[in-house]
Amino acid sequence: MKAVRLHRYETRPVVEEVPEPVITHPLDVIVRIGGAGLCRTDLHIVEGQWAPTSNVALPYTLGHENAGWIHAVGSAVDHLTPGDAVILHPLMTCGYCRACRAGDDVHCEASAFPGIDTDGGMAELLKTAARSAVKLPAGIEPASVAALADAGLTAYHAVKKAVPQLFPGSTCVVMGAGGLGHLGIQCLRALSPTRIIVLDRNPDALALTPGWGADETVLVDGSHVDRVLELTDGKGAEVVLDFVGEQGAERDSWSMTRRAGSDFVIGYGGTVSIPAIDVISTERNVIGNLVGSYNDLVELMALTAAGRVEMLTQTYPLDAVNDAMDDLDAGRLRGRGILVPEGAAG
Amino acid sequence: MKAVRLHRYETRPVVEEVPEPVITHPLDVIVRIGGAGLCRTDLHIVEGQWAPTSNVALPYTLGHENAGWIHAVGSAVDHLTPGDAVILHPLMTCGYCRACRAGDDVHCEASAFPGIDTDGGMAELLKTAARSAVKLPAGIEPASVAALADAGLTAYHAVKKAVPQLFPGSTCVVMGAGGLGHLGIQCLRALSPTRIIVLDRNPDALALTPGWGADETVLVDGSHVDRVLELTDGKGAEVVLDFVGEQGAERDSWSMTRRAGSDFVIGYGGTVSIPAIDVISTERNVIGNLVGSYNDLVELMALTAAGRVEMLTQTYPLDAVNDAMDDLDAGRLRGRGILVPEGAAG
Amino acid sequence: MKAVRLHRYETRPVVEEVPEPVITHPLDVIVRIGGAGLCRTDLHIVEGQWAPTSNVALPYTLGHENAGWIHAVGSAVDHLTPGDAVILHPLMTCGYCRACRAGDDVHCEASAFPGIDTDGGMAELLKTAARSAVKLPAGIEPASVAALADAGLTAYHAVKKAVPQLFPGSTCVVMGAGGLGHLGIQCLRALSPTRIIVLDRNPDALALTPGWGADETVLVDGSHVDRVLELTDGKGAEVVLDFVGEQGAERDSWSMTRRAGSDFVIGYGGTVSIPAIDVISTERNVIGNLVGSYNDLVELMALTAAGRVEMLTQTYPLDAVNDAMDDLDAGRLRGRGILVPEGAAG
Amino acid sequence: MKAVRLHRYETRPVVEEVPEPVITHPLDVIVRIGGAGLCRTDLHIVEGQWAPTSNVALPYTLGHENAGWIHAVGSAVDHLTPGDAVILHPLMTCGYCRACRAGDDVHCEASAFPGIDTDGGMAELLKTAARSAVKLPAGIEPASVAALADAGLTAYHAVKKAVPQLFPGSTCVVMGAGGLGHLGIQCLRALSPTRIIVLDRNPDALALTPGWGADETVLVDGSHVDRVLELTDGKGAEVVLDFVGEQGAERDSWSMTRRAGSDFVIGYGGTVSIPAIDVISTERNVIGNLVGSYNDLVELMALTAAGRVEMLTQTYPLDAVNDAMDDLDAGRLRGRGILVPEGAAG
Repeated sequence: MKAVRLHRYETRPVVEEVPEPVITHPLDVIVRIGGAGLCRTDLHIVEGQWAPTSNVALPYTLGHENAGWIHAVGSAVDHLTPGDAVILHPLMTCGYCRACRAGDDVHCEASAFPGIDTDGGMAELLKTAARSAVKLPAGIEPASVAALADAGLTAYHAVKKAVPQLFPGSTCVVMGAGGLGHLGIQCLRALSPTRIIVLDRNPDALALTPGWGADETVLVDGSHVDRVLELTDGKGAEVVLDFVGEQGAERDSWSMTRRAGSDFVIGYGGTVSIPAIDVISTERNVIGNLVGSYNDLVELMALTAAGRVEMLTQTYPLDAVNDAMDDLDAGRLRGRGILVPEGAAG
Repeated sequence: MKAVRLHRYETRPVVEEVPEPVITHPLDVIVRIGGAGLCRTDLHIVEGQWAPTSNVALPYTLGHENAGWIHAVGSAVDHLTPGDAVILHPLMTCGYCRACRAGDDVHCEASAFPGIDTDGGMAELLKTAARSAVKLPAGIEPASVAALADAGLTAYHAVKKAVPQLFPGSTCVVMGAGGLGHLGIQCLRALSPTRIIVLDRNPDALALTPGWGADETVLVDGSHVDRVLELTDGKGAEVVLDFVGEQGAERDSWSMTRRAGSDFVIGYGGTVSIPAIDVISTERNVIGNLVGSYNDLVELMALTAAGRVEMLTQTYPLDAVNDAMDDLDAGRLRGRGILVPEGAAG
Repeated sequence: MKAVRLHRYETRPVVEEVPEPVITHPLDVIVRIGGAGLCRTDLHIVEGQWAPTSNVALPYTLGHENAGWIHAVGSAVDHLTPGDAVILHPLMTCGYCRACRAGDDVHCEASAFPGIDTDGGMAELLKTAARSAVKLPAGIEPASVAALADAGLTAYHAVKKAVPQLFPGSTCVVMGAGGLGHLGIQCLRALSPTRIIVLDRNPDALALTPGWGADETVLVDGSHVDRVLELTDGKGAEVVLDFVGEQGAERDSWSMTRRAGSDFVIGYGGTVSIPAIDVISTERNVIGNLVGSYNDLVELMALTAAGRVEMLTQTYPLDAVNDAMDDLDAGRLRGRGILVPEGAAG
Repeated sequence: MKAVRLHRYETRPVVEEVPEPVITHPLDVIVRIGGAGLCRTDLHIVEGQWAPTSNVALPYTLGHENAGWIHAVGSAVDHLTPGDAVILHPLMTCGYCRACRAGDDVHCEASAFPGIDTDGGMAELLKTAARSAVKLPAGIEPASVAALADAGLTAYHAVKKAVPQLFPGSTCVVMGAGGLGHLGIQCLRALSPTRIIVLDRNPDALALTPGWGADETVLVDGSHVDRVLELTDGKGAEVVLDFVGEQGAERDSWSMTRRAGSDFVIGYGGTVSIPAIDVISTERNVIGNLVGSYNDLVELMALTAAGRVEMLTQTYPLDAVNDAMDDLDAGRLRGRGILVPEGAAG
């Protein structure tokens, strides 16, 4: 089958023939890919930034946002049938540790991450674990939702954790209106009545946000922290969702968080650095956020099926992976890029 | 009446005669002091460290941990009667803002802080707000609990916030077995079944902690982080209560916090500095902690009345305030120092 | 001033001149009424049903859903100024008990209830407590929101308690699309992404509900429980909000609640009767609901100001109270009736 | 192998030879039984009371509280090894439905219940699902904990749900100091600082409860509700844990629950019957309770390993099952009866 393989860091991946994956464990499932999301993380992988973390042996297949149809299942898998349309939770989890059993799969003590530390979904077929497949509601095409498997799921998870603090009359600042942010805004609107203030460096990105549910927009131009304080009676927001996490956003996000409020770190790259006296005298929190759980992904599919969230996507044939990467790198890609294998169909 | 007055920063406070406070607002109450706790913060105030924060006009009266008996009440106060034994919540709060109404008094939008930014309780009488007085359960002497009003209340509040994460089989690390820590350990034992690991630089302090409920002790000697990881299968603790917050404790506390766990910052002095990638890839949190609420103080009095927590104290006459401060500064004071005005009695 | 006075049970109230209320406690406030909601409870009061509960001495003034403008304040009231537009939390609460301090005002240990057990707001002026006045957001007229003070607040409170159970993909059944139900549906839509199924005996009432956010409607015709089970894969709803509570609704609501779900009792009249084996073998809950807290009312005003909820109202002059009562009793009143004193204005 | 088989309702079970269970699914595990708890439910099963619910085909093997050692595992089971000492969660659950994934196994959409609706553990070997085995902490013998698998787990689960309402100064009433109640009292003491008031008809049972953590005891003699109200300033308890659920306990438990409090139904047999006006005017709740989750059972084992809870047991050889049942029925059995197969050992 065809797959997007990375042979050397700092070198373009190639599309080449590889053997099809086979069932080797009773809980394996093999999925025929309908779409694989392309993510900025893929660029960083190619650059070698993830090498020390993932320890993956090259060559391997990229692609960590995957959806498609069940192709084959192991002997212990009773709840999935070939042909089922599915989106895949990004992690392969054990199902037996406390975290897995508590609905907190991402903290599984023995997980693997296809596309990061094992073969991913930029291919015709992907092997993953039976626990990872979410059946799609009727009428939802795998390629249209693939990017929700990781980027969307991360945004949804952070929003869901924040909602209990977002009573009517509260304010939530969304830092960054890009890939994750645009989903986060839609999730916020669907799950809470909070006032949503969106910040971005790009006026064009801001212009789209009222359509997703933003109440106010603020251009990141140096006066943005003051502007948010002005919009919140000098107090800041109950919650800041920082989808950027670098280039000063990590500092500004804290400054825009009000007393007893929470600064949700989602993007990364920078360093959160705060004198302890500031942490305690205002009783503010810094909240870490990782990708969501399996049940979170089911919930996100329900929101999608109800038409309450929608991800902007642009599809490319699998063979055009490097064009897609170039478009992403050059800022030409609107929404998320989705790689679709030739003839992909249930 | 006699009061401990600070006339100039970096100069010893003096005990001198000042006019008695008088009721000027219908919600005022005046309390005859039974005991006023002495705190390291008082040393910092004298040193001038709090001047930019408090903006208090000198001279003024120190003392922010106060208990005694109701002496006089304003015309709008129906629920307190002269003679009632009370401990005082450290803040004077408005009662009308969202925070006050939500049981989150410490985030009151219009509070004052006797002993910090207005006259405090190292005196024979103190004026505060009707909302601040907690009636003491029968049999509890004001002087024995005064230090619970701030130091104890801070420890209790942090523990109470942490308890939902501390299931049987979990681990809580207590960083620092001093004034706050020794109370925190007792509160943890009363409120949760977690395994308690206590860290301190001082072996003598550690030796006392099993009597308060500690399960394990670890000397802070450079190998302590590794030791805690060893005691927790390499994972760290679900919660770290950092009562130190400086001199490396703020860094070590984060390192001892496991995935999806929370690092509670209570002590201060240092800077919490963490790459965002570490925050998000492990989904850990940094939780700010301030003094507790009025209801928290009522609960702490219930624990005290039930004999489940006890604060070590050493009493001094009000006139001996500088001896007490010297003892505190020199490390000669065992437990908390309590200043007692001559003839203090209900 | 004019007031609607009840002199004898089972006899129509009369509109007559009474002395204006005067400030007698430093925390009193007097409000010039802009609108007083008329409620089915007022009919029950006239019928004498509340006599044993309220123990009120006749004659007295009706009206427990009140909004208007501050007219006068006691000497201890600093946060309200004559002329402020306000809606009144229905209870006068003490502010000092644990419940008041925890944001749970309705369980105050020493409350009074104007219009129920003391003089109410169907009058030109009403005396209440300083703690009860919620300042209205700019642009909101007291008469337009008066009925939110009790009926609306009850619906909002129940919805807010239910929201944590209402994840995307869940179902919430709303039993009754009348005075409280129509507000409940709007609050649900504003606060959650749940699927809303509304039940009512009246097809005309059901026809309006999609405009408020209902996803499905089911006529109460004997087959309604089966229909709801059919719509929920035979499982029932995660939450049922029973705004009826009598005539079989209390039994059907339980039957439509799924395993581990909750049946919220809001309406009353009937008896909840369930074999303990049914309670435990399905781990379902029966949740009691009373009117909301002060902060709940502030939040409901924020939703109103944002245009996310709106109460249907029909105004009557204060003198026409009996016409309004007749219309209500005969089912001719669309929405809630609001009594407006002549010349009511800030 | 030997097994306790029920051939006909209302007839004594017999101990007879049956074929050993065999692995037929890759996720099966077979456990060598170290101890099987005997429960009043077993008497009810023999009487035929469960026949309509369980629909089990006779003959079958009794025993739903089981612990032992792993004997054999299916081909998909990687986390268990023959010889591992285990206690078994009472349900066999699917692991794939929302409930299983949310840590709410008992509401699994496709569960089976050994000893109730399929062959149980009063035998030398038991077949169950890989997901059901909890590895025992070192030093804990299966026979000593078997009865915690169902009775203990139910008590623990209810206590854990109640703990957030049980602040210092609150009161929890425990109705019934028998099999479940004595465990519930110990769990309450380990997990909360609440004041524990225990009620029972049997003075001898009450006499033991202070040793488990009870603060007060009240004999059920007709004046008990008044006595509890007296002990709680006329208000009742924040939480009542009703381990009886019949013979008036279900009514008294509600009467002893204070405003805004919760009546936890755990025992059964009676009917909970409350006018809706009582539910709403006091905002009290009726909370259903079923057996706990897998993680709950792990936590209960941690409490046991820490010496914080202990179940009273009396062992019988498997062959003496009818003696044990007679002793239980006649009230001669102190603590829980545990059936131990001959030569049971890891």
